[in-house]
Amino acid sequence: MSLAVKSIKSLAPLLDRVLVQRIKAETKTAGGIFLPESAVKELNEAKVLAVGPGGLDKEGKRVQVSVQPGDKVLIPQYGGSPIKVGDEEYSLFRDHELLAKINE
Amino acid sequence: MSLAVKSIKSLAPLLDRVLVQRIKAETKTAGGIFLPESAVKELNEAKVLAVGPGGLDKEGKRVQVSVQPGDKVLIPQYGGSPIKVGDEEYSLFRDHELLAKINE
Amino acid sequence: MSLAVKSIKSLAPLLDRVLVQRIKAETKTAGGIFLPESAVKELNEAKVLAVGPGGLDKEGKRVQVSVQPGDKVLIPQYGGSPIKVGDEEYSLFRDHELLAKINE
Amino acid sequence: MSLAVKSIKSLAPLLDRVLVQRIKAETKTAGGIFLPESAVKELNEAKVLAVGPGGLDKEGKRVQVSVQPGDKVLIPQYGGSPIKVGDEEYSLFRDHELLAKINE
Amino acid sequence: MSLAVKSIKSLAPLLDRVLVQRIKAETKTAGGIFLPESAVKELNEAKVLAVGPGGLDKEGKRVQVSVQPGDKVLIPQYGGSPIKVGDEEYSLFRDHELLAKINE
Amino acid sequence: MSLAVKSIKSLAPLLDRVLVQRIKAETKTAGGIFLPESAVKELNEAKVLAVGPGGLDKEGKRVQVSVQPGDKVLIPQYGGSPIKVGDEEYSLFRDHELLAKINE
Amino acid sequence: MSLAVKSIKSLAPLLDRVLVQRIKAETKTAGGIFLPESAVKELNEAKVLAVGPGGLDKEGKRVQVSVQPGDKVLIPQYGGSPIKVGDEEYSLFRDHELLAKINE
Repeated sequence: MSLAVKSIKSLAPLLDRVLVQRIKAETKTAGGIFLPESAVKELNEAKVLAVGPGGLDKEGKRVQVSVQPGDKVLIPQYGGSPIKVGDEEYSLFRDHELLAKINE
Repeated sequence: MSLAVKSIKSLAPLLDRVLVQRIKAETKTAGGIFLPESAVKELNEAKVLAVGPGGLDKEGKRVQVSVQPGDKVLIPQYGGSPIKVGDEEYSLFRDHELLAKINE
Repeated sequence: MSLAVKSIKSLAPLLDRVLVQRIKAETKTAGGIFLPESAVKELNEAKVLAVGPGGLDKEGKRVQVSVQPGDKVLIPQYGGSPIKVGDEEYSLFRDHELLAKINE
Repeated sequence: MSLAVKSIKSLAPLLDRVLVQRIKAETKTAGGIFLPESAVKELNEAKVLAVGPGGLDKEGKRVQVSVQPGDKVLIPQYGGSPIKVGDEEYSLFRDHELLAKINE
Repeated sequence: MSLAVKSIKSLAPLLDRVLVQRIKAETKTAGGIFLPESAVKELNEAKVLAVGPGGLDKEGKRVQVSVQPGDKVLIPQYGGSPIKVGDEEYSLFRDHELLAKINE
Repeated sequence: MSLAVKSIKSLAPLLDRVLVQRIKAETKTAGGIFLPESAVKELNEAKVLAVGPGGLDKEGKRVQVSVQPGDKVLIPQYGGSPIKVGDEEYSLFRDHELLAKINE
Repeated sequence: MSLAVKSIKSLAPLLDRVLVQRIKAETKTAGGIFLPESAVKELNEAKVLAVGPGGLDKEGKRVQVSVQPGDKVLIPQYGGSPIKVGDEEYSLFRDHELLAKINE
């Protein structure tokens, strides 16, 4: 889905949605040699850019999402809503679809 | 679905439904040159025209929808009920189907 | 489904059901010229004829339906139970299936 | 399903089930002329013969069914459990499957 | 499913399960003439042999089943778990699958 | 699923799971004559070896399972997770999948 | 799913997820003879490396997971999200998918 917004920062996820950007795998070796595209593995690590206010539980109270902007997370292999702003790609996930936080 | 109503303004969404109109992509460049149709990307941005009073939770209380008329929103790639009034096209979504608000 | 009842008025919807009749599109132009059948668009506007007493929530309380007899409503493209009395056609929808009220 | 019971009256529906018998369409005209079988329309009107004590809600309380023995009801096109006693055919529906009461 | 138990009486259904035995249709006429097998209709009447203690509702309380040992019931056309002890066949149904009690 | 554990006794089922071992059918007659394999009927009787602490209800309280180690139970024809330790086969069922207790 | 993290220890499962590593079957006999690959049975035993803080029940309270880091568990034949860090493979399961604890 292409968006005409000037910056991804104008996107405020609704309910329990989390906006993430996949972390790109290295395309050159430590020694500076560029890797052929087939050798670059797609990673399932992503950076959280923005989070929704949380979904509503059965009593109408907000359930805060599990992650915060800046967190690094493990995202599932499939799923999420892809978004494209300019040449950059992003995804929106429901909070419960995120698998793990990555602490470094 | 074609409607014979004179104005889209006569439509009042029920429950948690949200009436939106997709924002049209630019069909000419900044310099005024018209783009061929294949170069015009379909956008998933829409403007909220009207919102329902909200669905009912398990205790019969109204759950207010997350957006307001005038908001710009990111809509999902698929889904929604298409409506046509005259030559204009609109869609009805359930509140929880909307992905994000777009702040500008 | 054909019914042998003398009048549609003898039908009292149960629970959260709403009895509607689709509004017929104009078959002649404002100037009085009859339109060929292919030019008559099927509309998704309907008039509410009767409503049920409402479904029951988890605590056994009635949840009133969102519309009243006389209301004009936007019905979904598919769904509903068709009913035929004489030559007239009607439909029964669940309250939550109705998309919007049409105020004029 | 054939039953060896002597009378349909020995059947007491369980929970929210409703025992009905479809009302037969006229097979001769008002003037006494018999209609060919193809001209006899199948009706979806049925008479309620017996009702169950009602299902149980989440707190274990009985939820009374919406109809009473003697009521005339509109039944859905499909569904229900067919029962045969002698040459007569009956059906068992869940209460919420019945579409409307027919008042005459 | 074959069982090696000596008697069906050793079977105690769990939760909301009901153990029944289908009532056999007459295989000879009132006058004592044996009917050919194709003329013997399969009946959906069954006798209740044993009932479970009832399932648990959302608060952990037992929900008593609707029938008692000795009751005659109408069973659905399909479903149930078949059990064989010696040459006799039995079935286990969930309580809510039973359609009606047969009072005689 | 093969397990490298030394004894099946080291397995402690989680939540509402029940560990059972199917009871083997007799492979010789009372008189001591061995039955050909095709004459040995597979039985659906099993012995309970271990039970989980119970699942959690909606309020977070443990719901005790319906059976105890040592109980003989009727298991369903299909389902369960097969486990193999050495040459012996076992199964894990959810408590509500067990059909009946067998009292002898 | 490949991860670029330096150590699996940087992974903190979210909600009720449990990070495990399958225990490898012996590839040589007790006497030190290497087994051909076809003779090495895949085991469904796994070691728990990390657990999430627990999912949320309907009242928003954390439901602690059933296992702890260091526990040995029986994992189901299918399911789980595979993760690869370097040459090592791991899996993430929901707590209720784990079948049994293995006590040794």
